[in-house]
Amino acid sequence: MPAPAHPVIVLMTDFGITDSYVGQMKGVILSIAPEARIIDLTHAITPQNIAHGAFILTKSADFFPEGSIFVSVVDPGVGTSRNAIAVRTERALFLAPDNGMLTSILQSRSVTEAVTITDSRYLLPVRSSTFHGRDVFSPAAAHLASGLPIESLGKKIDPAECTRIPMPECHSADNGKTWEGSIIYTDHFGNLVTSLDAQLLDRSKKWHVHAGKYRHPVSRTYGDAADQQPLAYTGSFGMIEIAVRNGNARETLGLKDGDPVRAEST
Amino acid sequence: MPAPAHPVIVLMTDFGITDSYVGQMKGVILSIAPEARIIDLTHAITPQNIAHGAFILTKSADFFPEGSIFVSVVDPGVGTSRNAIAVRTERALFLAPDNGMLTSILQSRSVTEAVTITDSRYLLPVRSSTFHGRDVFSPAAAHLASGLPIESLGKKIDPAECTRIPMPECHSADNGKTWEGSIIYTDHFGNLVTSLDAQLLDRSKKWHVHAGKYRHPVSRTYGDAADQQPLAYTGSFGMIEIAVRNGNARETLGLKDGDPVRAEST
Amino acid sequence: MPAPAHPVIVLMTDFGITDSYVGQMKGVILSIAPEARIIDLTHAITPQNIAHGAFILTKSADFFPEGSIFVSVVDPGVGTSRNAIAVRTERALFLAPDNGMLTSILQSRSVTEAVTITDSRYLLPVRSSTFHGRDVFSPAAAHLASGLPIESLGKKIDPAECTRIPMPECHSADNGKTWEGSIIYTDHFGNLVTSLDAQLLDRSKKWHVHAGKYRHPVSRTYGDAADQQPLAYTGSFGMIEIAVRNGNARETLGLKDGDPVRAEST
Repeated sequence: MPAPAHPVIVLMTDFGITDSYVGQMKGVILSIAPEARIIDLTHAITPQNIAHGAFILTKSADFFPEGSIFVSVVDPGVGTSRNAIAVRTERALFLAPDNGMLTSILQSRSVTEAVTITDSRYLLPVRSSTFHGRDVFSPAAAHLASGLPIESLGKKIDPAECTRIPMPECHSADNGKTWEGSIIYTDHFGNLVTSLDAQLLDRSKKWHVHAGKYRHPVSRTYGDAADQQPLAYTGSFGMIEIAVRNGNARETLGLKDGDPVRAEST
Repeated sequence: MPAPAHPVIVLMTDFGITDSYVGQMKGVILSIAPEARIIDLTHAITPQNIAHGAFILTKSADFFPEGSIFVSVVDPGVGTSRNAIAVRTERALFLAPDNGMLTSILQSRSVTEAVTITDSRYLLPVRSSTFHGRDVFSPAAAHLASGLPIESLGKKIDPAECTRIPMPECHSADNGKTWEGSIIYTDHFGNLVTSLDAQLLDRSKKWHVHAGKYRHPVSRTYGDAADQQPLAYTGSFGMIEIAVRNGNARETLGLKDGDPVRAEST
Repeated sequence: MPAPAHPVIVLMTDFGITDSYVGQMKGVILSIAPEARIIDLTHAITPQNIAHGAFILTKSADFFPEGSIFVSVVDPGVGTSRNAIAVRTERALFLAPDNGMLTSILQSRSVTEAVTITDSRYLLPVRSSTFHGRDVFSPAAAHLASGLPIESLGKKIDPAECTRIPMPECHSADNGKTWEGSIIYTDHFGNLVTSLDAQLLDRSKKWHVHAGKYRHPVSRTYGDAADQQPLAYTGSFGMIEIAVRNGNARETLGLKDGDPVRAEST
């Protein structure tokens, strides 16, 4: 694979942006791949919440250019024996600790190659035991952006052996009449993003969403609810979300991440 | 207009940066315009506060290169029938929901062209009803950055018909001896930015600013006040600001956005 | 010096990212140096804490490409008579207020040149008295990125005359058997970064770190402690840090910036 003309490296971590950690990662990348474009997907994954990261990564990846290189680091096991891995799909490259971070990518994409990231020629010469985002993943991604073939990073592995973790579910026990799920996370506006996949809800029916003590008809858009009233709708991730028009659903409804939700057709 | 050699797209939203929303917008832009430079003006506009966004946009735009493309999304009406618009001034292009976001730009700049953003060839093929920042404004801006003429985006409209909202005022009832205004917003340091435009205050006179129960002489710089003492001065937006030297004016003075302020000459 | 092919400008401030201040700086830079790459090291230096900024800058600089231009603005004295300075080391350029911001750089690097930033041709024509980050440092850095020799910015000065401030110490009164230091700052994860330099601790010995009422053996990595247990280890800055595995050390241990710590060998 020749080096792409405009290689894009996309960073997603739970590092926050108040420290210099993300800045240091970018310095390492530009030292190796001065042409790389670096985009922050987010650095506010709930600390050490791998499933949250896996969800955001899968739902966001296809908005980026083909050939993008995703560096995803939520890494409670940094410094232990967990592997660092790189995975190639038909559309992109994904680097992450092998701790379940790529669960949804492995489930939803066709993986053409997977390797461990171990060849020290492509890592920083001095590596801390606590910050592989800077010392392992950033230099490896930068070398890929410069045209290094993924198989040079380490040893080929079977994608089936990569770690997978349980993801928030959307399941039906009655052939699609009702669907059970949970709140995956709450966004900046206080909107509650659920694991109810809008594509699974039969569009020929009317739906309500039950959450806590509330029951909301599924609307098309914010405009379908009155000011300060709650509503459910298909959000920009393609999942059912619960919001309060011109308000904050988390605060108004008293719901939190992990709480169960249920969609019922009528 | 040929595509600029270094097209700059400037993003301003109330999306925050803890979610992946802004990252997804950037992915969409780079998928269409790989050469575009993307700069974050801020994503911390007070949620749904269009006037706050309009103020920041107008006061910041001229610090960016000529030909910059500004994408400004504070959009409580997303998914309703409000238009998406693109406006050209002599210096730049502005994309925003037609909800008053461009009020100050329309008031202070010479607008040479205005159009609706409607041609689906320049939008994402699948569009959510809640995230036009990603699905409408980002692809439209990216096509402009690639050289698309603004008139290709949709239908020409009369700039006079674009929505305008009331902006925080600075007015005098006594021929400039006193000026009345309000606190527009409070910055990261706790400094209170007011709507009192320093250019309107006669420089041959001495001025005091009244805010709450306080009265401050207008100083030249922070250094003119003693440690932990409040002062008023001309801030970097060209407006009168109130600060506490080496302290936090919001916390010390107990003032908040919207509170009235008055400048008096002596 | 010819303009580098990929000039990198690295920004570090205490401006936060909720305002438009950092965005305006980037606009100014791109207006002068459209090819410049701009990287945020961090904008969350503790407000007006020059020593915190000096530490982060020194510990981060070498992760960036050679020839990088660092703009570091923690500037409680903006608008007073303090100088703005630019310093060249063998590896990089550093612009900052002359208030101690470059203390650690001056102590740890070989400085080849130092100048004041005064030539108004390389500053914004209209300069506020409160925002030299935008009006002085950004345009000066952009001109350097475009190939301007550092000596054109102003008057040569003796690096020995640049302001230095006391930095958090790491000292031993018993020939290295024990080392005394303090907590420099607390990161996003609640990990406590201390001034105990791991390189000074004799590796042939076992070490414990005393902090508050706690005593922790120095481990190699997070994995050496049990879940929710505190540990000390060499962090990614090369300093001893105190963390709680899968937890938050600041909250759990009740320690704060400035608190004393001590390393003892056994």
